[in-house]
Amino acid sequence: MIEAVEAEMQAVLASEPSVDDTFFAMLQYHMGWVEADHTPIGKGQAGKRIRPLLCLLSCAAAGGEWQKAVPAAAAAELLHSFSLIHDDIQDQSPTRRGKPTVWKIWGAPQAINSGDAMLAYAHIAMSRLFERGVAPDVVVRALRRLDETCIELTKGQYADMSFEQRDDVTLDEYMQMIKRKTSVLVELCAELGALVAGQDEVTIQHFGQFGLNLGLAFQVKDDILGIWGDEAVIGKSAATDIETRKKTLPVLYGLARHDGLRTLYQQPTNQNGFVPQVITCLNEVGAREYAEKEAAAYSHNALHHLEAAAPTSEGYKTLYDLALKLLNRMA
Amino acid sequence: MIEAVEAEMQAVLASEPSVDDTFFAMLQYHMGWVEADHTPIGKGQAGKRIRPLLCLLSCAAAGGEWQKAVPAAAAAELLHSFSLIHDDIQDQSPTRRGKPTVWKIWGAPQAINSGDAMLAYAHIAMSRLFERGVAPDVVVRALRRLDETCIELTKGQYADMSFEQRDDVTLDEYMQMIKRKTSVLVELCAELGALVAGQDEVTIQHFGQFGLNLGLAFQVKDDILGIWGDEAVIGKSAATDIETRKKTLPVLYGLARHDGLRTLYQQPTNQNGFVPQVITCLNEVGAREYAEKEAAAYSHNALHHLEAAAPTSEGYKTLYDLALKLLNRMA
Repeated sequence: MIEAVEAEMQAVLASEPSVDDTFFAMLQYHMGWVEADHTPIGKGQAGKRIRPLLCLLSCAAAGGEWQKAVPAAAAAELLHSFSLIHDDIQDQSPTRRGKPTVWKIWGAPQAINSGDAMLAYAHIAMSRLFERGVAPDVVVRALRRLDETCIELTKGQYADMSFEQRDDVTLDEYMQMIKRKTSVLVELCAELGALVAGQDEVTIQHFGQFGLNLGLAFQVKDDILGIWGDEAVIGKSAATDIETRKKTLPVLYGLARHDGLRTLYQQPTNQNGFVPQVITCLNEVGAREYAEKEAAAYSHNALHHLEAAAPTSEGYKTLYDLALKLLNRMA
Repeated sequence: MIEAVEAEMQAVLASEPSVDDTFFAMLQYHMGWVEADHTPIGKGQAGKRIRPLLCLLSCAAAGGEWQKAVPAAAAAELLHSFSLIHDDIQDQSPTRRGKPTVWKIWGAPQAINSGDAMLAYAHIAMSRLFERGVAPDVVVRALRRLDETCIELTKGQYADMSFEQRDDVTLDEYMQMIKRKTSVLVELCAELGALVAGQDEVTIQHFGQFGLNLGLAFQVKDDILGIWGDEAVIGKSAATDIETRKKTLPVLYGLARHDGLRTLYQQPTNQNGFVPQVITCLNEVGAREYAEKEAAAYSHNALHHLEAAAPTSEGYKTLYDLALKLLNRMA
């Protein structure tokens, strides 16, 4: 399945003789297909492609031919790629997957443009559903969902950036930001799979809610791992999210409940012993338990919706297993 | 017609209770509807909306109901707006239409995000053709043309930015850049008008070529006015395009033909009398005549294609008159 998506994305982002090679190399570099000097890269350097996989497995689980959904899976991954190129500029991140980011190599103005092109190509990819025999009204709906999702992404990104200047972000605001910034894209993938499979509205919504809750569970677990993850346990390096003062779910929970924690965060720089002190405060108010409980609830919802969709196809078990594997980060 | 487009765009970019007002204010500010502090602005501060007007007049001239094409006209203007928001960041332009640019007020990271949202909303606008009763396969085609146009815009923008680091840009490369960066959007407007009107392929192509050549003629004239325009004639201020060393069509023509001009541009800063010296060089090689001839050729092609489309409707004369008015910059 992943090979089919990769081939589809490569067809959409193929170089053209009338255009300077570097225009496409920037896009292909971000996808993990070529080096910055345009040299092709062998397999295994690209992203995990979990989103397109969820889309195709959802299509199969919903009783459809997954091959028909390949353009939708490619579109979702290209939408994700667009948002990463722009995120890296906005956050001034120098590296991604161990390599320099697009803006680091070609500069921010060209990287903005490259992300714009990636977003347009995501649409081209989606519109190719038409050539695979998907009915035009379904293609129109898929394209509209792509843009509704993209708008949610920008709302989430807006909130994420504006939260940096605020000290009073609530847990609800944070969860809405996370939902918009990351989970709606997982929702889109599962939903489009069921849509292309020709499922009824109720089933499509169950698939969507499965994806949404899966994304939320995954993201909350990410917040937990950023504080109490392996690195911190082993002691190799201190918890990065604490060091960078990232206001993740456990931290926001703690800040609302622990005066000492607020005092620590009011100091302009991290004092000696900042990280262990913060973790002690978080443990005192049960921030980890709170976050684990939230993650478990989203996880439960995800599987509930997947079961409610009750697909009878063979593909169902494969999708359920992938979901469990992703949710097993919870264990 | 412009009021209908404005209402359509306002419906697409309407604020939502669940989202921070500033997210929408950034978009509405760029459209000329509100001040940076969210205060509404009265009429007459928005852009000229020539592109949506061309779309609706093309629809009417092609025998269609222009009301049906309003979503397409709105989409084209929102696509244009997206590109301006990002252009201003890339060029670090502090003002547009006499006001601070989006990035100047809210910073580059938020402005990148705002442009992204604008591009997604352009798609939402286009997909609303469906609600106006346009057949779904036509909507899919309109959406694909929107993205093909957007990709051409990014190719043009890529070339424009990369030309800044090059001394060997040819006239052909320049014209292709200009075509991609500006004229394809005018092409899209005219083409979509005819498409929504239900015209045959040949007629749609004639409308497209009318728009493309109109855009090219307009752009070349812009290059001429940037050197020999009123300001320079009246002597109020020196020719801006020369002062900023912009490599426009007449300048590229001159650089390929005048050793003295190349020497002037090789100096790192503008010496005393730079502007009149450059203009003398350009006049010596007939750069203005060359550009005027090119503009006239595009202008001729534009009207030729409009006539070839041979619409019999009443709307035809209005479109022809608008085209002449725009081309009269040539006189």
